[in-house]
Amino acid sequence: MSDGLRVGMLGCGTVGAAVIRMLHEHANEIERRAGTHVEVVRVAVRDPDRQRDVPLDPSLLVKEPDEIVSAPDVDVVVEVIGGIEPARSLILAAMAAGKSVVTANKALLADHGPELFDEAVRRGVDLLYEAAVGGGIPVIRPIREHLAGDRIVRLTGILNGTTNYILTRMTEDGSSLDDAVREAQALGYAEADPSADVEGSDAAAKAAILATIAFDTPVAANDVSREGITAVTADDIAFAKRLGYVVKLLAVAERVGDSVSVRVHPAMIPISHPLAAVRDAFNAVLIDGERVGPLMLYGRGAGGDPTATSVVGDQIELARGRAAAGTITTAAHAAHGESVRSLVPIDDVLGEFYLLLDVADRPGVLAAIAHAFAHHQISIKQVWQEGHGDEARLVIITHVAQERTLRECARTLEQLDSVKAIRSIIRVEAGEG
Amino acid sequence: MSDGLRVGMLGCGTVGAAVIRMLHEHANEIERRAGTHVEVVRVAVRDPDRQRDVPLDPSLLVKEPDEIVSAPDVDVVVEVIGGIEPARSLILAAMAAGKSVVTANKALLADHGPELFDEAVRRGVDLLYEAAVGGGIPVIRPIREHLAGDRIVRLTGILNGTTNYILTRMTEDGSSLDDAVREAQALGYAEADPSADVEGSDAAAKAAILATIAFDTPVAANDVSREGITAVTADDIAFAKRLGYVVKLLAVAERVGDSVSVRVHPAMIPISHPLAAVRDAFNAVLIDGERVGPLMLYGRGAGGDPTATSVVGDQIELARGRAAAGTITTAAHAAHGESVRSLVPIDDVLGEFYLLLDVADRPGVLAAIAHAFAHHQISIKQVWQEGHGDEARLVIITHVAQERTLRECARTLEQLDSVKAIRSIIRVEAGEG
Repeated sequence: MSDGLRVGMLGCGTVGAAVIRMLHEHANEIERRAGTHVEVVRVAVRDPDRQRDVPLDPSLLVKEPDEIVSAPDVDVVVEVIGGIEPARSLILAAMAAGKSVVTANKALLADHGPELFDEAVRRGVDLLYEAAVGGGIPVIRPIREHLAGDRIVRLTGILNGTTNYILTRMTEDGSSLDDAVREAQALGYAEADPSADVEGSDAAAKAAILATIAFDTPVAANDVSREGITAVTADDIAFAKRLGYVVKLLAVAERVGDSVSVRVHPAMIPISHPLAAVRDAFNAVLIDGERVGPLMLYGRGAGGDPTATSVVGDQIELARGRAAAGTITTAAHAAHGESVRSLVPIDDVLGEFYLLLDVADRPGVLAAIAHAFAHHQISIKQVWQEGHGDEARLVIITHVAQERTLRECARTLEQLDSVKAIRSIIRVEAGEG
Repeated sequence: MSDGLRVGMLGCGTVGAAVIRMLHEHANEIERRAGTHVEVVRVAVRDPDRQRDVPLDPSLLVKEPDEIVSAPDVDVVVEVIGGIEPARSLILAAMAAGKSVVTANKALLADHGPELFDEAVRRGVDLLYEAAVGGGIPVIRPIREHLAGDRIVRLTGILNGTTNYILTRMTEDGSSLDDAVREAQALGYAEADPSADVEGSDAAAKAAILATIAFDTPVAANDVSREGITAVTADDIAFAKRLGYVVKLLAVAERVGDSVSVRVHPAMIPISHPLAAVRDAFNAVLIDGERVGPLMLYGRGAGGDPTATSVVGDQIELARGRAAAGTITTAAHAAHGESVRSLVPIDDVLGEFYLLLDVADRPGVLAAIAHAFAHHQISIKQVWQEGHGDEARLVIITHVAQERTLRECARTLEQLDSVKAIRSIIRVEAGEG
């Protein structure tokens, strides 16, 4: 174990540069803990001539990724370019050349995970991806290793820091969605085009990865029912607050009988819920295990340095385990054929719901609305009416109902003369205990 | 890897029985995830004839632990008897016989860690102990593996569920310490003799283990400055609440220059602090890493099933890595000689302090007291006085001061005519951000 781990990197953006800095500045500790030296021997970048603020001999920058993935002097490939192609082909080529791979690429894993893990198993190499979900938070390894003896019943996560920052500003400052998005952009939390965040696809990719390993069954990003935060209004946030809730964009993956439900949607959670205290751009995953009970893992879900911590942790694991290459990638991925579970359509999912209605303010309105709920066999948990005349608004929180039934009830409500508009429907999480 | 991992167990109490049940009831998942069968082949107990509610052939129960530690058909020894002897000698004997060991024994690791880890390295076996700190929470592996590339600056933990339950009852129900202790005993959270919990020695042993791996330096339980919760009164809790704090028994391990401070003591933390929401018997560890930022790991810190989850997780890690035995136990323990850091005496530690004084209620009292603080160069952050005449009480929260200086100031205060008694001195944690 004294010849060191030779790392070839694909990409040198924010995360890549942070990885190079960490390997350089913490070299002594890393060598002691890994039991061997971890050294970056080559980095493929689009423009090798550009000046970069990284502690790296510029001669190690190359333009051609093949000089990494097929190079005999590279033991491990670290992929931090992101996106589907060429990342997918390069990772497959690296594995074909017998190299283990570390990646932070959630989109690729969510869409092409089975192909990549099957190839890793066939080639006897490892594919590690702690940074793909939760940035600097240890999430993948605790699920895959720490909880390997338990049965996970449910995962509930705040997996997108941008939307959590936006919802925090709306909650704490009363900002509108648009203002909060602009603030997130100004701070660099949101892209110029914020759609991957606010429409929930980033969180859906991460939910797919977590559900795959938690339930030993392949779940792709497209399998995840997805609703973003674009329809959440300042009114919803204000009513939630009055009723003792906060609005979060949740990723939920749970066992339902022999099936699995995986979804991303805004939800009201009680202020006493462990995830309610997760503010700003922080992420957290709450895991309910049959034996272990509730476990929460909380920290920075994005950013160069936190994400690099996870990437370097994976490299150190590979450095330590070199004698046993191929033993880390779990059987879960190779063996998922044994335990494929069906996915529950979102229509069948049970939950409580919050509805905000514009209603006419005259006698009999509440009776007509209550009758509609009763007709669909949905019981009402809380009602709140305010305003007069054209401005009257009615908030209803239901007891547990099936999503399909709730939607049917909403269509009935829309037919009522006294209901002018259904302004919002948001799921409500009952919380712990 | 198809011949299975043969486990010999020392002890079959609450945790041991839960381990046996988990291995039996989750056998299929565990085999798939471990890549091999994990089988209990023998269990040493004091009375093999006693009826036990575990799914185990009674013929596998033996009285003689030597039939485990030196048996050729045992691959891994799981020690769940607790205490120092005979646990220490049995673990050393098992390692001498080439067996890796899984233990949940925090007292033994805190007092004899270096001896055990040195022996593991010499024998080329592994010593895993995820269950020793934080019960079911993944703590050891995240520090040792996930954060191996980062530098930990500070660990702050709620590591004893019994005292956290007691303080929660005092905070939420206004109970006295004695009543809360009795309630904890009735629920089985506290022993008939609760001293190891309420005097902080259980938390100190866990703090020693965490500091050892976080700072690559040997810290024994005796090295930890320790103050329990026995002096915390209902008044302190009530004043804390009014000032926006809650009282927790904290374990703190932090870098101070090239040295390390490790201590366990009650502390007031702001209600917005991530650890303030850790209620009842839950545990949590807040880790501040140079790169990763704040990370919090939260869950059940005790109980058979949560603790067994960690023990079984360690067994699965050993089962997966059998081809590379000896590679898991980190160099940190073998190499601690390289990085021994000095420990900061508690007198030198800096912090804010809360003081509760009984004072005379007459003109000039506050001036005399403020003068005493000024004389010792300690600035005052908050003052609160209430009551009249003989009942007057004064609460002071200081800015950052050295513990030694604060104690000197307290002696000066005691000399003042107007100060009848110093009722409490409790450290105050400034919290995150």
